[in-house]
Amino acid sequence: MSPLRLGLVGVGKIARDQHVPSIEATSGITLTAAASRSATIEGAANFASLIDMLEGARIDAVALCTPPQVRHALALQALRAGKHVLLEKPPGATLSEMDDLVAAARDAGVTLFATWHSRFAPAVEPARDYLKDKRVLRAVITWKEDVRRWHPGQDWIWEPGGLGVFDPGINALSIATRILPKPFFLTGGTLETPENRQAPIAARLSFTDADGLDLFADFDWRQEGPQTWDIEVELSGGHGLKLSGGGKTLHIDGEKRIDAPDAEYRGIYRHFVDLVASGRSDVDVSPLRHVADAFMLGRRETVAAFHDETAAH
Amino acid sequence: MSPLRLGLVGVGKIARDQHVPSIEATSGITLTAAASRSATIEGAANFASLIDMLEGARIDAVALCTPPQVRHALALQALRAGKHVLLEKPPGATLSEMDDLVAAARDAGVTLFATWHSRFAPAVEPARDYLKDKRVLRAVITWKEDVRRWHPGQDWIWEPGGLGVFDPGINALSIATRILPKPFFLTGGTLETPENRQAPIAARLSFTDADGLDLFADFDWRQEGPQTWDIEVELSGGHGLKLSGGGKTLHIDGEKRIDAPDAEYRGIYRHFVDLVASGRSDVDVSPLRHVADAFMLGRRETVAAFHDETAAH
Repeated sequence: MSPLRLGLVGVGKIARDQHVPSIEATSGITLTAAASRSATIEGAANFASLIDMLEGARIDAVALCTPPQVRHALALQALRAGKHVLLEKPPGATLSEMDDLVAAARDAGVTLFATWHSRFAPAVEPARDYLKDKRVLRAVITWKEDVRRWHPGQDWIWEPGGLGVFDPGINALSIATRILPKPFFLTGGTLETPENRQAPIAARLSFTDADGLDLFADFDWRQEGPQTWDIEVELSGGHGLKLSGGGKTLHIDGEKRIDAPDAEYRGIYRHFVDLVASGRSDVDVSPLRHVADAFMLGRRETVAAFHDETAAH
Repeated sequence: MSPLRLGLVGVGKIARDQHVPSIEATSGITLTAAASRSATIEGAANFASLIDMLEGARIDAVALCTPPQVRHALALQALRAGKHVLLEKPPGATLSEMDDLVAAARDAGVTLFATWHSRFAPAVEPARDYLKDKRVLRAVITWKEDVRRWHPGQDWIWEPGGLGVFDPGINALSIATRILPKPFFLTGGTLETPENRQAPIAARLSFTDADGLDLFADFDWRQEGPQTWDIEVELSGGHGLKLSGGGKTLHIDGEKRIDAPDAEYRGIYRHFVDLVASGRSDVDVSPLRHVADAFMLGRRETVAAFHDETAAH
C-alpha cells in the first residue's frame, strides 16, 4: 500500500517540535503538504489555508494542529472533502461540536482520530493491562508544573476556552480514563482562578465510580523546581502501581518495570495509520467531558493575580 | 398487561405538584410506594429510603425526584435491582456519571428514561415536525424569569451543581435540541455571577451548527413583571415560527397554530409507560452537555450581589 499522504494545518511550535519529526519517523505516512497563514515546512507543498491545500494538493489525510476554537470548521471541511482527519488535543472547544464531526466521518467513510498524546507514553498501556479486571480502591493524580516555564507569555491559555491548568490536567485525565478499569465521575472540587484571569491556575477534584473508588486529582500550575506528573493507584491487599514522569515510568508494587523515553507522537501517527488501514475511527471525549464537568460542578475560589514576568522580556 | 408499579423517591414540591397527579392521570402505571426521609404520600406504602423500599415493596419501576447531586447512587441501586428508572431533570450533576447508568440499564435489561419535562409541552413536537428537513438560518431563545418568584429562599440553586440560571435555561435547551433539525454547539458566551454567589444569574450564549446557524440564547433570572419563555426560529424566504409560554403556544408565519394548557408530566409518564412496554431507553444528555460547555467556554463576569429578601420572611 502506498503511504498515506498527509497535509498538516497550523504550523506552530507543536507541529514543528512533535508532528513533523514523528511523521518522518513513521512508515506508512508521508508529509505532503502544509497550510499556514505565516509559516512553511521545507520539503512540503505549502498553502495559505486548508481550502487552498484541499484544492491544490493530492492528500489523503489532514492533521489539525490549530487552536481548538477554530478546529471544528476546519475538521468539517476536511471530512466533507473525504479526508481522514487527526485532531490535536483537546478535540474541540466544546463537547457538543464533536457530534457532527463523528457523523461527517461516518458519512464520508473516513477515519476521525481525536488524539490524546499522553496516552501514548510508554508506561500507559502496560498500566492499563495490569489494572484490567482489578478492583481499584484509591488513586491519586498529582499534576504540578510551572506555567511560566511551559507557557511563557501565552495569554490565550488564560482566556475562556484556554482551560488554564486543565491544559496539562487533561493529559492526566486522558491517562486515568485509559488505565482505570471503570468509568469514573466527579463528585466535587475547587477551582482556583487568579483575580485577573478567566481560567483556573489550580484545581482539586474528587471523583468516584460505581464501586466507590476514591480518586483525587491535584492540579497546580504554580510549582517551581521539580515538576510532578504522577498517578498512584492502590489495589486491595497492599498492591498498587505508580506512573510517573507523565507516563514514562511504571512501578508495580514498588518495583520499576518500565522507564522509557518519550515517543508519544510517533505512537499517535502509528495508531493513525492503523486506524485508516482498518477503516476505524477513535474518538473518546471522556477527558474533555471531565474538564467540562469540573467547570460545571467545581466551586470557584479567587486567588492572587497571576503576572507572567517572562512575557515582558 | 397489569399496570407498572412505581416507587417514587424524594417526596418534595415537584413530586407532589407534578408527579403524583400525573401518575394518577396516566393509564398503565400506578403509584405503589414512596421513599422519603421526612414526607409520606397517602395511599402509597411509605419507606424511609430507597433500599427499604426495594426490600419492602413490590415495584417494577422507580422515579427519582431527589436533587441531582445524589441521583447517581440511587439510580444505580434501582437499576441493579432490576427496576426501570425515571430521572427528573437534570439527569445528574455531571455528564460523566451517565455512562454507567446507561450500562447498568442495558445489563439489567430495563428502561432508563432521563426526562426533560419541557419537551412534553404541547407545541414542541408540532414545532419539531414543522422544522424537520428545513434549513434554519437564525434562532433566538429568550428565557427570562424572576428567581425570587420561582425559587424563593432556595439557596442550593446558587451552589456548585445548582446551575443558577441554567436551571430554567436547560429547559429552553431541552426544547431547542429537540426542535432544531441539526445538532448545534456553543461558540462563545458570557456568564454573569453575583459577587456573593457561585452560580450565574444571567447568561448570553452564541451557538452555531455545521451549516452556519446563528443561534443566540439570552437567559436572565432578574426579570420582574411578565415572564418570558420564547424561542423564535427564522427560516429562508421570510418563514418562521415562534414558540412561547415555554412551549404552550406555537405561531407559524405569524398565525397561531397551537395554544394548549400544560400537561408536561402526563406526557412524561405516558412516554415512560411506552418505553417500558417496548423495551427501550431514552437518555439524551445534550441539554446538560450544552450547559457544561457554557461553564467551560463562557466568559465570567461578576455582577451585583444577589440577596433573596423572601428568604428572610
